[in-house]
Amino acid sequence: MKLTILGCHSATPRINTNPTSQVLEINNHIFLIDCGEGTQVELRRNKVKFSRIKHIFISHLHGDHFFGLIGLISTFRLLTRETDLHIYGPKGLKEVITLQLKLGNSWTNFKLIFHELTSNESEVIFEDVKVSVTTIPLKHRVYTNGFLFKEKEGERKLDINAVLNADIDRAYYRKLKKGFDVTNEKGELIKNETVTKEPNTPKSYAFCSDTAYTESIVPIIKDVTVLYHESTFLEKHAHLSAPTKHSSAIEAATIAKKADVGTLILGHYSTRYDETEEFRTEARTVFDNVVLAESGKVFNF
Amino acid sequence: MKLTILGCHSATPRINTNPTSQVLEINNHIFLIDCGEGTQVELRRNKVKFSRIKHIFISHLHGDHFFGLIGLISTFRLLTRETDLHIYGPKGLKEVITLQLKLGNSWTNFKLIFHELTSNESEVIFEDVKVSVTTIPLKHRVYTNGFLFKEKEGERKLDINAVLNADIDRAYYRKLKKGFDVTNEKGELIKNETVTKEPNTPKSYAFCSDTAYTESIVPIIKDVTVLYHESTFLEKHAHLSAPTKHSSAIEAATIAKKADVGTLILGHYSTRYDETEEFRTEARTVFDNVVLAESGKVFNF
Repeated sequence: MKLTILGCHSATPRINTNPTSQVLEINNHIFLIDCGEGTQVELRRNKVKFSRIKHIFISHLHGDHFFGLIGLISTFRLLTRETDLHIYGPKGLKEVITLQLKLGNSWTNFKLIFHELTSNESEVIFEDVKVSVTTIPLKHRVYTNGFLFKEKEGERKLDINAVLNADIDRAYYRKLKKGFDVTNEKGELIKNETVTKEPNTPKSYAFCSDTAYTESIVPIIKDVTVLYHESTFLEKHAHLSAPTKHSSAIEAATIAKKADVGTLILGHYSTRYDETEEFRTEARTVFDNVVLAESGKVFNF
Repeated sequence: MKLTILGCHSATPRINTNPTSQVLEINNHIFLIDCGEGTQVELRRNKVKFSRIKHIFISHLHGDHFFGLIGLISTFRLLTRETDLHIYGPKGLKEVITLQLKLGNSWTNFKLIFHELTSNESEVIFEDVKVSVTTIPLKHRVYTNGFLFKEKEGERKLDINAVLNADIDRAYYRKLKKGFDVTNEKGELIKNETVTKEPNTPKSYAFCSDTAYTESIVPIIKDVTVLYHESTFLEKHAHLSAPTKHSSAIEAATIAKKADVGTLILGHYSTRYDETEEFRTEARTVFDNVVLAESGKVFNF
């Protein structure tokens, strides 16, 4: 997986800070997560091919997470895109996008397929052979979901020397990869585990923004490879978390610890802070493996 | 008057080009004209005080002229603005802005006053003691207006030496400025023109974008100090003007010539061109006084 941060500040776009947007590359998919104002310019800056974006996930309908969506769709239109575009987000998104297209008399020549979310339970919203995407119900001032992107368990890997030594016909390789025992050329039963290895551990990425501190997400994001959890405030402003339904760096780290995640990425910093290093310092008092999101930063995992 | 170009390219925002937006300072007003995506960042870059913007004029509902408006309004809200904001633009603007505020549960704590335009005739839409704003009906693919910003005729100026020599009581100065004859201390009638001078010539600015070539606007913009007229295409693509209802540089210059304007500013360049100098070269074959809009450029007149 490759995660590119396009923007990771809260509230308003400014000269050197962009609102929330991320690109996740996973098994040939390019998923766009949230789309604040200016996202299409950041996609260009980070050389993401527009035509490869086929799925966009919107967490909630606050401007810093979706005001760039209509502009991106319009640009797709101007670039004469023909590929379907799937958009996953809260109910209302379809109405506001289609209203703007209607007012501009600017209908797209590609299919715009809205998957409007209304459930307060975690649900699978995308799935193919290799990947699934599941919602993570969050606690914010409006209806909000995080998203869990998961690789599926892969096939077992052939231990090719063992396979050759065991004198197994090629026709059985597929069965071996699926975990079955097979019979070799001599008619002997070959136990699967003697000629195959464990598949790669499937990786996973959880995006959780915006949200107040809520332990209800812990079972859903348990053991993820990487967790992005919003951390709007430092401790000196932690009293603002509850009324605004945001989290502090320490709250984000506490969730990371309880969920036993691999790496915690912090972001959605309040624009009141000029420096972000202190977010890491505070989070590390609770959880070790913390990194900071910043525009243009790429995480490979 | 001081005109600041925030963006002057058509279609989509890109790394080094911004869609249409301008700031006009005129008699203590700061008028924002159009508001493509990213306008709020350009306002910051050009150090325009957000709180001084009280009137926003939107030409039409294509994205490159208004997708930045909802973000700017949201930022005003986050900055706890309390001053009324007047928005002038096509019918539909109120619906799309209020829908987005509603979806985000983000009502403004300042009054948002929409002046929705539907007329196909030129009409006065703003007026105070010193300034008026009039619509310029344009020909585009959707309902579109340009805007004519005009200083009103000022008062006559006192020729202070002549006034003192004529022995006129101070109480009559106001009457003199308004053009009346007065009686002096000795009871003599003093002809106004012997003690006053002509007022400054009122200046005017006409913004015309987007539009096909249309001579119907010539009487409205006749003799303006400065005309901004869109010029999306160079001659080699002039055949695209009619179907897209845009203009070429030569068409813009032809309008400038027929209206006998002072200066023509070109802009709204198609993003297919990397250089803009040729727009000026072509326009100058028809009209002499041509300048090119570019982001961050300031025109004082």
